[in-house]
Order: sequence, then C-alpha cells, then structure tokens
Amino acid sequence: MSNNSNDTIFIGKKPLMTYVTSTIVQLATKPNVTIKARGLTTAIAIDVAQVVLKKTKPAFTIDNVAIGSESLVSSDGRNRDVSTIEISIKRTAA
Amino acid sequence: MSNNSNDTIFIGKKPLMTYVTSTIVQLATKPNVTIKARGLTTAIAIDVAQVVLKKTKPAFTIDNVAIGSESLVSSDGRNRDVSTIEISIKRTAA
Repeated sequence: MSNNSNDTIFIGKKPLMTYVTSTIVQLATKPNVTIKARGLTTAIAIDVAQVVLKKTKPAFTIDNVAIGSESLVSSDGRNRDVSTIEISIKRTAA
Repeated sequence: MSNNSNDTIFIGKKPLMTYVTSTIVQLATKPNVTIKARGLTTAIAIDVAQVVLKKTKPAFTIDNVAIGSESLVSSDGRNRDVSTIEISIKRTAA
C-alpha cells in the first residue's frame, strides 16, 4: 500500500479501486477511516466511499461528512481556495 | 432564476456563480437550502457551498452533508451507479 499506515486515505490520481482497497484494508484493523480529498478529486472521494460501503455491506457505514476549503498558492503566486471533503467511515454497530 | 422556487438547488453545467446566486437568493427567504448534485458535479456543489458561506459570512453555516449513490440506466442500457451529495445550508443561530 502506498498510503501511510494511519487511518486517513488521501485521494489522488490513481485508479479508484486503489483507494477502495486501501480503505478496506485500513478498516480491517481501525475503528474508523477518513477519506480526504480536495478540488475535483472530491467527487472521486464520494465514489470511493460508496464503493467501499457497497462491497463491504453491511459492515460499515458513513459516520460523518465534512466539507471545507483550503487556501493554496498557485503557480502564478496567487491564492486559490480549493474545496475539501472528509468522509469518515465507521464499523456498523453490532 | 432557472431553478424551481423551492428550497433545493440542483447543480448542473452552468457557471458556478449562477448556483451561488440562486442559493443566496433562496436563503434570503427560506430557513435552509439544500444543494444537490451527482457524478462529477458533486465537486462543484462543494465549491458552491463554500463560496456561498464565504460571501455571506457569518450569516449561514453548513447544517448537514449527506452522500449516497443513485442507479441510472446509461445509454448502452446498463445500470450505472453515480454518487450524490446533498449539502444543507442553514442560517447561523443568532
């Protein structure tokens, strides 16, 4: 797994299933995992969460979804605000 | 305004500011407004919500964010699942 070993999955430019697998692997040992993304990959983050839930149904559920924005300095030196999303997935209560 | 007069804004292919304006107009008279989108426009929905909050700061806040998926029949007759997002914005408690 290329992701770090904590409980957060950052969505980048790899194929969707890479992140789905990473998330499920993390969920095997952690009580909850947070999927984070920013900019256009926020749409991918939602897809990843949905596929994880569908593949593992009914073991996990969405705990919380938070949206926000971050200020980045773009290549032309100006500040740009990008939207962020954090989707927290937890084990379904037995 | 091209949107219907209830308290939901559906995100489509128009420029971002169209939806920002629609949302702020709705919020002028409604206690809360829900921004809905599916597929790749989910990323735009988050942008719209963030711009609305920034422009009207601190009058409104995010009430709830829900993600899900919908099954659509694509042009080749197969079912495709698309991700959806619903962002509810409410007036900040005085």
